[in-house]
Amino acid sequence: MNIAPTFAISPIRNASLQAQLAERINNKTKPPGSLGRLESLAEQIGLIQQTTEPVLQAPAIIVFAGDHGVVAEGISAFPQDVTWQMVENFLAQGAAINVFARQNQIALHVVDAGVNHDFGVRESLLNFKIANGTRNFAQEPAMSAEQCATAMQHGRTLVAGLSGNVLGFGEMGIGNTTAAAALMHKLTGIPAAECVGAGTGLSVQGVRHKQQVIEQAAQLHADAVTPLQVLASVGGFEIAMMVGAMLAAAERRMVLLIDGFIVSSALLVAARMHPEILDYCVFAHQSDESGHARMLAALGARPLLQLDLRLGEGTGAALVYPLVQAAVNFLNQMATFETAKVSEKSAE
Amino acid sequence: MNIAPTFAISPIRNASLQAQLAERINNKTKPPGSLGRLESLAEQIGLIQQTTEPVLQAPAIIVFAGDHGVVAEGISAFPQDVTWQMVENFLAQGAAINVFARQNQIALHVVDAGVNHDFGVRESLLNFKIANGTRNFAQEPAMSAEQCATAMQHGRTLVAGLSGNVLGFGEMGIGNTTAAAALMHKLTGIPAAECVGAGTGLSVQGVRHKQQVIEQAAQLHADAVTPLQVLASVGGFEIAMMVGAMLAAAERRMVLLIDGFIVSSALLVAARMHPEILDYCVFAHQSDESGHARMLAALGARPLLQLDLRLGEGTGAALVYPLVQAAVNFLNQMATFETAKVSEKSAE
Repeated sequence: MNIAPTFAISPIRNASLQAQLAERINNKTKPPGSLGRLESLAEQIGLIQQTTEPVLQAPAIIVFAGDHGVVAEGISAFPQDVTWQMVENFLAQGAAINVFARQNQIALHVVDAGVNHDFGVRESLLNFKIANGTRNFAQEPAMSAEQCATAMQHGRTLVAGLSGNVLGFGEMGIGNTTAAAALMHKLTGIPAAECVGAGTGLSVQGVRHKQQVIEQAAQLHADAVTPLQVLASVGGFEIAMMVGAMLAAAERRMVLLIDGFIVSSALLVAARMHPEILDYCVFAHQSDESGHARMLAALGARPLLQLDLRLGEGTGAALVYPLVQAAVNFLNQMATFETAKVSEKSAE
Repeated sequence: MNIAPTFAISPIRNASLQAQLAERINNKTKPPGSLGRLESLAEQIGLIQQTTEPVLQAPAIIVFAGDHGVVAEGISAFPQDVTWQMVENFLAQGAAINVFARQNQIALHVVDAGVNHDFGVRESLLNFKIANGTRNFAQEPAMSAEQCATAMQHGRTLVAGLSGNVLGFGEMGIGNTTAAAALMHKLTGIPAAECVGAGTGLSVQGVRHKQQVIEQAAQLHADAVTPLQVLASVGGFEIAMMVGAMLAAAERRMVLLIDGFIVSSALLVAARMHPEILDYCVFAHQSDESGHARMLAALGARPLLQLDLRLGEGTGAALVYPLVQAAVNFLNQMATFETAKVSEKSAE
């Protein structure tokens, strides 16, 4: 029997390094604190990489695609075929994530975690398919414990193949805001009404129906209580694979770029297993999907961008990357008051 | 006698082009509206450039430096010499704006609009010096009407020399948050207490003193009522030069990247002369300088970033540029539902 992989994630706390980083940041030619959130970001990345001179190498985004049996309940504005059609669009370089990753020079990897479609042999598609979509979690567990463990293991395997130290997470899967909202509801106890949103564009009635589906599923899976059990009962293959990839990336001390609602739901699962993972996360943006603000609050996260995005695919992670670069670049490239011979603040 | 230059700025409104842009945006392979503020940004840039296929060319940032006589009142946490020292830092590539402009491939131009220092002949410094700093506006007008007109004309001249279609604005000038707050107070009527902030790092007492200086100056210059008169009475050479450059850039249908508190005060003056200029502005960020939120509200502006920056130099404009690129890139590079053969939204 396949057992869920285990991970060892170190907290990044290090008081002496933190003091060194703060001193380095404060010696730069600018009023103290004047680069705002870029300063805390620079400090975080220094702590992640255990150095006062962090370097970003070979940034990548993995887009995990999977289908969801719960679409049988009519919870999405788009038909299930859009999942595989959008995977084809990723492979043809035509989607938003292709455009943004290319612009910001981020390598893009597309993974079939469990799409309900036979893609055949495709050079640029990473085939880690668990099954042709999950089962309908309104009626039975979305996946078996073995499938869940295998998906997580695949996530770790994918990360092991990367050479860089920055990893963004993206996803594609018609129905996966329903899975993400169900995970959020089960793991945080926040009422389903506050977890559920319009996804790709449901009407008010559609959102209400989606909420009922989630509430009934939560009752059906009342026995699922550990993060792993909850993940298997109402998650998705792409979500479970992200959980494994996130934990593996933090274990390797990578910087994790967290995208929107679905990616955050995977992180929620991961953080319930290993809270230290949060030290490694840069929260890209607050999505327009209505549950995201509450989910970020549950994670204690403050996102960098707020652009009313609700597309997924890792688009927020790709868009935030230049700010991450800016944080590292000011730390490494700015002159100090001493070298630039600039006077410091006067005593008042 | 030198008279302030005049400008002719066209509104960007164009209902048929706007409809074409909206259709182009909605045909992209994404749920309608899911790219949030990038969609409205793409539409705005299309309208500015009068095309459904906008292109960003040779982006530049001009940093305008000038000194302020009002520093005699003790309103800054840093000594006046920091203005010229930071100009030297810009020329030596050591400041934050150098780092961010270089990262995002934005050309950087540094202008001496009126720094209290003799730089000698310097290849990379654009010498448009009006005088060695303004006069102390707590006691007399900061500049003469002629100086103000000349500064605005210089701003226009600078823009005429650019070949690109995106222009960011930055500034350096010890004391210039005091000038900016005075402009804001005079032009909007917002109480000085809500216009004034800590600048580069004043104490609470220092902020209170700065507020008093502004209130007294407003009384002293009660006769100054038109935007030009207000600009001359409490503005700065770098601010007046930005006003001319902004108006000239909008006249040439460039995209204007508006940085923080001081740059916004220049725009406030420009917009009181030609409200249509606002159509051309992308508001980079909301500064941590306390008056900026109110000033943005007075301009009807919603900034893209909120990163607690309060550095000036055009840093916010440089940091936002990748988002502007992303807006144009998705519009030009994403596939449509038709070409990508992706199914559209189902009827519910």
